[in-house]
Amino acid sequence: MTAITTTTSRQGDTQDEAGTRTGKVMAAIRAKVASRALAAGDRLPSIRRFAAAQGVSPSTVVEAYDRLAAEGLIRARRGSGFYVAATVPAPMALAAEPARELAVDPFWVSRQSLDADPAVLKPGCGWLPEDWMPHAALRRALRALARAEPALLADYGSTRGSLALRRLLLGRFAEEGLEAAPAQLLLTGSGTQAIDLICRFLLQPGDTVLVDDPCYFNFQALLRAHQARVVGVPYTPSGPDVTAFETVLASEQPRLYLTNSALHNPTGASLSPQTAHRVLRAAAAHGLTIVEDDIFADFEPEPSPRLAVLDGLERVIRIGSFSKTLSASVRCGYIAARADWIEGLVDLQVATSFGGASPVATELVGQVLAGGGYRKHMEALRRRLSQARRDIAARLAPLGIDPWLMPRGGFYLWCRLPDGLDSTVLARLALADGVVLAPGNVFSVSQSAASFLRINVAQSGDPRVPETLRRVMAAARS
Amino acid sequence: MTAITTTTSRQGDTQDEAGTRTGKVMAAIRAKVASRALAAGDRLPSIRRFAAAQGVSPSTVVEAYDRLAAEGLIRARRGSGFYVAATVPAPMALAAEPARELAVDPFWVSRQSLDADPAVLKPGCGWLPEDWMPHAALRRALRALARAEPALLADYGSTRGSLALRRLLLGRFAEEGLEAAPAQLLLTGSGTQAIDLICRFLLQPGDTVLVDDPCYFNFQALLRAHQARVVGVPYTPSGPDVTAFETVLASEQPRLYLTNSALHNPTGASLSPQTAHRVLRAAAAHGLTIVEDDIFADFEPEPSPRLAVLDGLERVIRIGSFSKTLSASVRCGYIAARADWIEGLVDLQVATSFGGASPVATELVGQVLAGGGYRKHMEALRRRLSQARRDIAARLAPLGIDPWLMPRGGFYLWCRLPDGLDSTVLARLALADGVVLAPGNVFSVSQSAASFLRINVAQSGDPRVPETLRRVMAAARS
Repeated sequence: MTAITTTTSRQGDTQDEAGTRTGKVMAAIRAKVASRALAAGDRLPSIRRFAAAQGVSPSTVVEAYDRLAAEGLIRARRGSGFYVAATVPAPMALAAEPARELAVDPFWVSRQSLDADPAVLKPGCGWLPEDWMPHAALRRALRALARAEPALLADYGSTRGSLALRRLLLGRFAEEGLEAAPAQLLLTGSGTQAIDLICRFLLQPGDTVLVDDPCYFNFQALLRAHQARVVGVPYTPSGPDVTAFETVLASEQPRLYLTNSALHNPTGASLSPQTAHRVLRAAAAHGLTIVEDDIFADFEPEPSPRLAVLDGLERVIRIGSFSKTLSASVRCGYIAARADWIEGLVDLQVATSFGGASPVATELVGQVLAGGGYRKHMEALRRRLSQARRDIAARLAPLGIDPWLMPRGGFYLWCRLPDGLDSTVLARLALADGVVLAPGNVFSVSQSAASFLRINVAQSGDPRVPETLRRVMAAARS
Repeated sequence: MTAITTTTSRQGDTQDEAGTRTGKVMAAIRAKVASRALAAGDRLPSIRRFAAAQGVSPSTVVEAYDRLAAEGLIRARRGSGFYVAATVPAPMALAAEPARELAVDPFWVSRQSLDADPAVLKPGCGWLPEDWMPHAALRRALRALARAEPALLADYGSTRGSLALRRLLLGRFAEEGLEAAPAQLLLTGSGTQAIDLICRFLLQPGDTVLVDDPCYFNFQALLRAHQARVVGVPYTPSGPDVTAFETVLASEQPRLYLTNSALHNPTGASLSPQTAHRVLRAAAAHGLTIVEDDIFADFEPEPSPRLAVLDGLERVIRIGSFSKTLSASVRCGYIAARADWIEGLVDLQVATSFGGASPVATELVGQVLAGGGYRKHMEALRRRLSQARRDIAARLAPLGIDPWLMPRGGFYLWCRLPDGLDSTVLARLALADGVVLAPGNVFSVSQSAASFLRINVAQSGDPRVPETLRRVMAAARS
């Protein structure tokens, strides 16, 4: 018995050991791929060489390589050895789920809504329906552009972008009490590109970035592309939870905080003056830089506190764009920051885009913004959205779906589902019915928003939206 | 004597030692800044704590901090300690020269030509004069766009970009013998953004990238932004020096090779079939991915060999744009590659730009390309440039400035200066006279092109160009 037990045990050990040895070799290769010491298409070390390096037998390396090949991480090629598979070429792909279309990750809503068939309903998407946008003004601007000088139609334009549009924006900032110089403003290809450029300028892989929990899902996708460590701070109806914010600044030493202050995405909340002040005080104490994404500014009935204004662009960087209010087809964003940072960002934008916003795009945006029609359009849009928020909330109430708060403006309602329902499950079911939803957890770093849905009221007027919600909720319950 | 010598020697040692200690502390702080363990605005360790950590006296740390402050790397602030200065916030800025406007680096030509006053002459710039571009076609396209459907004017568009424009491009590829599917093509915000996206997808900081020497200066600026290690391979009139290429692939294991095959920038040379074949064979042997920037394709009188065509988009990625032939104001580029890579690039583009080329831009480009006018415009442009290359070469000959070769197309002449002249010196002198030159070394990784200038023949018709060259050459000689 004893002998047998021992033998069994030793056999077990041997198997475990062999397993461990194989596992070690597999882990060593995985680490090389993760650290990019081995990249897609790279040949793996020869079996003999790697066996010697790892102090294991060649058969252990063969076993490890075979298992990794079965997993799809590496491939055997025409008898010439093993290579890293092409489908894991970059950090993005490494982070991606195997079943891409089914993964309800920070890309999910973007993927489903950007490439949706026109027949698909998109209460989960992040923009207004095409017929809520100011086409008449855009068409006028296009006709005017058709008569513009050749240089405007043909040339790259200046590195900081149209001075006329920058002056117009600075005038709007001044109305808020934010005085800034043209050298503090840079036009970019889009609001997302503005944040991306700032991240490239200020972050290194592994840096910690603080976001609201919940926050706009693409912040997470973008920060993942920068290989940043993303840390969330709980969001309250008056801004980030300040006590948690102070604690996390002390413990995590984040390099950046990326937030929306007004009409926060997805909650629709706005920062209170007290929270704004404490956030800035904590940021100063910890040397934190803040990126304030202000793309929903024009949807506010009257201005709420802004970090950029209180701070005077010292440690706060303001970014914005016109994709939500004017056109998402004419892309243009901006960065307002300290002049020395802008100077560095200008070079970085030349290196990576050879210029920023297209002159044709900035001219169209400038034309529309300068026309009196834009203010009128926004006034009408705010009234229409105010009505839509009430209407849609009233239609969702019978389903037991309630807004977390009633926002002062904008097109989002951050809604809590009845107990026991998981919005990711609903989103999968609804997609099969041709309805794109935005499930709570795609916004949540801590994955604590499974019982929430973000509803775009402007995209939810069709009666099929509440009908589909009712149907998928029933299906999820059964 | 002996005693005195010893004392002197010991004093010397002590000073050296103190210098070494201070130097060590300075080096430690510099390393933290370079590695971004300390970023712009970060507080430095307290003097007492850092002295203990480094095993030196607090006075040594004080001395080191004071010297670094004098250098501008750190700043003392309101009695609250020392902070990393804001002007070194990122790798880009770290790499920049202190005297930015005077540094004749890979940014120099871009900076000087993009922001030049209209009165400035730009024989060094990389584009055609505004009145050589097809405005009439663009104006027609703008008027048509003013009548487009609301969705085209208002929405983000699909993640891969306009299917119509992609099909049009695929048709052109097919004419070259390159069959590809729509899923292998992604539209981007510009040609530079196309390369940037690929670099983000395939590179990690520290990866080695191979470029031609000389090569387009912005390749270096872009790769620097990716913190890549840039290695050059000498360029010959028929492409890269293949023997050197094979050697460097074996010794440096580059991840990517970034090149222009046809009408290479700055030399105007084109790849021979034999070189193309050997480059691809070596790339296959070493698992190298190649990015072929094909923006000058339409300037060729007839097609020359392309790596992307020979390879069938296996390991070669083709990128292009319309900024050189159609408009630099309407920005749009593309990436043609393996479908699985495109899928990863799509996600990366959503994360970092929330979409690619603006639908308005792709519609304008598509309209112009589809019109019969574009081919006629390009035929006329090729004839005009052919004449301009001969004319400008004839005007430069009396100055002793000779083209390295006479290109088959395009607008560049890569010119050798008379012995003893340094093109960087000429560029600085010419700038003071309101003329932007492109000195050889901004194109050269090895800084071995001081006796070359890149001349844009389309921007050199003004008699002040040769006059200025003559004057600055005389000034440089004296």
